[in-house]
Amino acid sequence: MEKIIVTLGERSYPITIAAGLFNDQTPFWPLTCGDSAMLVTNDLIAPLYLDAVRDKLMKSGVKIDQVILPDGEQYKSLTVLDQVFSALLAQSHSRDTTIIALGGGVIGDLAGFAAASYQRGVRFIQVPTTLLSQVDSSVGGKTAVNHPLGKNMIGAFYQPASVVIDLDCLNTLPRREFSSGLAEIIKYAIILDAAFFKWLETHLEALLALEPRALAYCIRRCCELKANVVAIDERDQGQRALLNLGHTYGHAIETYMGYGNWLHGEAVAAGMMMAVHAVRRLGQFRNADVERIKALLLRAGLPVSGPEEMAPEAYLPHMMRDKKVISGRLRLVLPVVIGKAEVCTNVANDMVVASIKDCQA
Amino acid sequence: MEKIIVTLGERSYPITIAAGLFNDQTPFWPLTCGDSAMLVTNDLIAPLYLDAVRDKLMKSGVKIDQVILPDGEQYKSLTVLDQVFSALLAQSHSRDTTIIALGGGVIGDLAGFAAASYQRGVRFIQVPTTLLSQVDSSVGGKTAVNHPLGKNMIGAFYQPASVVIDLDCLNTLPRREFSSGLAEIIKYAIILDAAFFKWLETHLEALLALEPRALAYCIRRCCELKANVVAIDERDQGQRALLNLGHTYGHAIETYMGYGNWLHGEAVAAGMMMAVHAVRRLGQFRNADVERIKALLLRAGLPVSGPEEMAPEAYLPHMMRDKKVISGRLRLVLPVVIGKAEVCTNVANDMVVASIKDCQA
Repeated sequence: MEKIIVTLGERSYPITIAAGLFNDQTPFWPLTCGDSAMLVTNDLIAPLYLDAVRDKLMKSGVKIDQVILPDGEQYKSLTVLDQVFSALLAQSHSRDTTIIALGGGVIGDLAGFAAASYQRGVRFIQVPTTLLSQVDSSVGGKTAVNHPLGKNMIGAFYQPASVVIDLDCLNTLPRREFSSGLAEIIKYAIILDAAFFKWLETHLEALLALEPRALAYCIRRCCELKANVVAIDERDQGQRALLNLGHTYGHAIETYMGYGNWLHGEAVAAGMMMAVHAVRRLGQFRNADVERIKALLLRAGLPVSGPEEMAPEAYLPHMMRDKKVISGRLRLVLPVVIGKAEVCTNVANDMVVASIKDCQA
Repeated sequence: MEKIIVTLGERSYPITIAAGLFNDQTPFWPLTCGDSAMLVTNDLIAPLYLDAVRDKLMKSGVKIDQVILPDGEQYKSLTVLDQVFSALLAQSHSRDTTIIALGGGVIGDLAGFAAASYQRGVRFIQVPTTLLSQVDSSVGGKTAVNHPLGKNMIGAFYQPASVVIDLDCLNTLPRREFSSGLAEIIKYAIILDAAFFKWLETHLEALLALEPRALAYCIRRCCELKANVVAIDERDQGQRALLNLGHTYGHAIETYMGYGNWLHGEAVAAGMMMAVHAVRRLGQFRNADVERIKALLLRAGLPVSGPEEMAPEAYLPHMMRDKKVISGRLRLVLPVVIGKAEVCTNVANDMVVASIKDCQA
């Protein structure tokens, strides 16, 4: 069992990583306050894991209620959030309850915002079941729902009390979802860790084959990398923006295409290639590294260009609503070399459009 | 001009109290970051003050947008909140914008939650225009919207950067709204300050006549009392609960009657009388003090019993959803003497029902 601490003073919390956690006989998450919890999950995950998790919690004497939401990014909305509040109130959950997110990034983000907002804040535990949520969205306290005009535009910084990662969940994860998680993994390597990028080039097939040791190492490394960034910049005032490589382009794709049609990781993969081409055009990135990144994304089963039906000019209006925009000026995360990135404020709109076209070529 | 500081470390902020602030030539609120702001107000307040406030801000070079919501507690909802997000996104407001609440408690609570949640938090300024919001809801960082199953159930602790109180707003405030504010003022006196209670007994007519000196002193004193409590217990873990005298009963009235039919202060006034009767029944409160409180509330034009159409038994289900409930146990704020109150966990349901009936007698 691996344990990583996200160091945030009184808001510090552990990430526990192991296989078989749902089946273990010992209680594995600390419900130290109150005696009730609300499990938030979706209709894909519920048949697979809900009974196991609920039974385990009930054995420890906790009153458990549940709310099962429809699966999909298009349901990460204020309307669906309200269903969680209604369930909490209908079952008279008080301020000492715990909300447990059992699912992928959509469930984690939405349940996390519910926990941040219900009675102005209740205890929250993340149980991520997808690769993407295990390496990224469950760690760091960013919660949100989408708005029709922009992704993750409504939310809160709200840290969980604990993150519990059962590696066995990956056995039931659809391949396309697995690839989507690999996009965020490759992102960490590009922005923070050249050695990890090399490791991924060597071990990608082992990951795709769900080889347990490779998976455990890879997920732990990503959680470590993210925990370090979050510890320095919890509220996204500086370095944390680097984690957004490819996301300004990617969120534009997700919003334009309709939430759920392009998976988050797919949009981020295409967005990373666009960012890489932008920086190559600035003469600051080696062609050989462009090709290494492209090759790794392709091996991971990810797109390296945007949707055909989306014109390059259609990106800009969405990108201008990015949360990194300050006083109407776009800011982009751009890699410097593999293993290092920075936030760039002086990217011209022409350059953005050209970088999108480069990927289509 | 009066200035009070709410002392909360890096989240400290000033409350500025004076007449004529909207008409003054000098800028009166510090828009120190960014160059845009969104004014959130309602259709009653907009014709009265929106132009003056907007013109003033535009003179200082700030880009101003506005969203005008319908007036009333029934619009303090997730649906109306979404209108604010849509307005912010449609006008491409970025994370360095400022949301300014111009209105009463409904506008302040809703705009405050919008500020807490938009892009996970933007700058927020309170410009309260009602007596109730000036003495209570604009200070202390509690933001929220209502849910059909419970008042203020969805929200955040989110401190404003500044609170700006123009006493001239009270000249246009309907008398019923003014009385509603007096309920919270009387509440501060009962729970925290016996001398202030005596002052109110002496000066109530001066307040009702909008005598400027009396108003300025009264509002400043309430802001001081609240700021002291909030400084000790920002996140409502202990002493801050005392500010809820009458609110557990009162929220039940507001929810049962339909938001907006009983004004918040009216419900709190009736709720305070119920709490007073509960503690009198426990043999811990003098009959003479019961009569003093009742007399002051009546002079202020406030109800001293609940709605006739609401049976005493109808209160309990709503009261059990109160945010002070822990592990299914009701907690009530009860006065000890005039000027002192405490949180009581051992009030039987029978006693609650009896205290409601006492008020109807």
